[in-house]
Amino acid sequence: MPIDIVVDAMGSDKAPEPEVRGAILAARQFDVRVHLVGPEDIVRPVLRSHLKGQKLPVFIVPATEWITMTDKAASAVRSKRDSSMRVGVKMVREGRAAGFFTAGNTGAAMATAKMVFGMLAGVDRPALATILPTISGSPSFLMDVGANVDSEPENLCQFAVMGSIYARDVLGIANPRVGLLSIGEEDSKGNALTRDTLPLLRNLPINFIGNVEGRDLFNNNTDVTVCDGFVGNVALKSVEGAAHLFRSLLRESLKSTVTSQVGALLSRQAFGDFKKRLDYSEYGGAPLLGVRGVCIVGHGSSNDRAIMNGIRVAAEFAQAKVNSEIEAAMNGH
Amino acid sequence: MPIDIVVDAMGSDKAPEPEVRGAILAARQFDVRVHLVGPEDIVRPVLRSHLKGQKLPVFIVPATEWITMTDKAASAVRSKRDSSMRVGVKMVREGRAAGFFTAGNTGAAMATAKMVFGMLAGVDRPALATILPTISGSPSFLMDVGANVDSEPENLCQFAVMGSIYARDVLGIANPRVGLLSIGEEDSKGNALTRDTLPLLRNLPINFIGNVEGRDLFNNNTDVTVCDGFVGNVALKSVEGAAHLFRSLLRESLKSTVTSQVGALLSRQAFGDFKKRLDYSEYGGAPLLGVRGVCIVGHGSSNDRAIMNGIRVAAEFAQAKVNSEIEAAMNGH
Repeated sequence: MPIDIVVDAMGSDKAPEPEVRGAILAARQFDVRVHLVGPEDIVRPVLRSHLKGQKLPVFIVPATEWITMTDKAASAVRSKRDSSMRVGVKMVREGRAAGFFTAGNTGAAMATAKMVFGMLAGVDRPALATILPTISGSPSFLMDVGANVDSEPENLCQFAVMGSIYARDVLGIANPRVGLLSIGEEDSKGNALTRDTLPLLRNLPINFIGNVEGRDLFNNNTDVTVCDGFVGNVALKSVEGAAHLFRSLLRESLKSTVTSQVGALLSRQAFGDFKKRLDYSEYGGAPLLGVRGVCIVGHGSSNDRAIMNGIRVAAEFAQAKVNSEIEAAMNGH
Repeated sequence: MPIDIVVDAMGSDKAPEPEVRGAILAARQFDVRVHLVGPEDIVRPVLRSHLKGQKLPVFIVPATEWITMTDKAASAVRSKRDSSMRVGVKMVREGRAAGFFTAGNTGAAMATAKMVFGMLAGVDRPALATILPTISGSPSFLMDVGANVDSEPENLCQFAVMGSIYARDVLGIANPRVGLLSIGEEDSKGNALTRDTLPLLRNLPINFIGNVEGRDLFNNNTDVTVCDGFVGNVALKSVEGAAHLFRSLLRESLKSTVTSQVGALLSRQAFGDFKKRLDYSEYGGAPLLGVRGVCIVGHGSSNDRAIMNGIRVAAEFAQAKVNSEIEAAMNGH
């Protein structure tokens, strides 16, 4: 039976083009019905031009406005009552769809989901998670990357339980290793938050492996890594900045000699493979955990492939019944 | 007139080989006299074999023990009274040398420098700084990357003043832009620490540009970036982990097809250039700012080139009289 997924058609930097194309790709490849939310006069012509008469389960849900990347999250959520984001999240809350995906303003998406869905019983604060690539090819799940700052030990404990369940049920990692992001492996290393959190994590029914460091995020030493959202956001954006620098320097270096130009040409296939393995779009976006509903946030630069994968991940998240598992774990059932 | 620099001969992972070779390179290229501290029976034969009879101002200062990478910093500093690190730092305190370089245990180096040198007047806590590469080629100075955790706003303010002076006097950046590492550009973005620190930074006689994000570290939007040592250490190690992953994936991808093998061969020159631009060894290590003396800490994996550059940076740091500038600024002169 197909699963219904709502997509904010006006989220990404190039909306609605990637959203429409991603929805079509997903409808073709997965057992999903995709609902694109946005102004009908904008989305309809794009959808029609790409469908080219094909019959696919891709539908349009009207919304008169949308939140931009430069909108302030809090005020946009309050003032834009009929935004594509809000209409989409409401469809999920009302049971008309199983999950929501947006490549739009992350802050607004988190605020909307928190407000419209509410929190899961036993969870105090939501956490935004991201998936990082590793040397072994297995995903590395880092949370929180920006839903909260100034977390308390109890928040990190809840993140650990939620992340552990998500990694097991959606990422398919049996008995996921959970690490606490710190600045040394020994228990004594870290700041006040990590030192207070460490003993609490040891008492949870998870596979806790102790403190891990920034470099462990990429070397398959940990499956799920928890941290405060300020720390996680700084780490994530630093890594994104470094990755951008690597690519630029590599491109420049390859261009700098004629021999290299030939080399670069011949290496193109290898670079394609390399890029794919690092590529954000393969992972399909960041789940927001802790809210009473399924919400996946993609990168603003998402292409059609990233949107397609975001829809896939939303469907997997919904089908795995992660949220009822989380509530059961939080409330000791 | 040559300047005297002390080098911990037993610091790096492959000590004393890189230290001895780096000292010889430095003595050849710069106007320095290098004092290698370590057990004479270990260092002497290596020095003799590399000097091959040349007359160069490289000397050995005896020390009977040394601190390893796996030693706990605090206890090693207390128990190993005649370590190469301690003997070296003491030489600087006693005025027998202008600066100290080690590629050894960072925690032990910081603890030793703090204990033996003491703090500069007006500075409450030292900060370890690192230099990151940027797209424009200009250095990006990030501090603190691990000397302290749970910093107070006053600490970050002192870091900003110290970093600003170092960037101007040693890195040669006129009127360096100082940013506060946060999770959004707006003043309201950040955690309790950054929000409390922001207005204080605005009142300092520095070129403060407001909040910056992780990705700004690499895109030449900021010259000096201040943060708490836990946050900076996590960011730095995350970036190191990502860089390692990036190189591994690239190597694998290039090996995966015959065409790529040819391409890789031809691209070798370009990769050499690329690696050099990213290479830690070109930057010569991380200064520890705030202590009453010159201390540069290099990476454990430092090669001879990195050691040579570390010696150069220690000499530049000492000659620029950064510490008296910092004391003057801190005490309103």
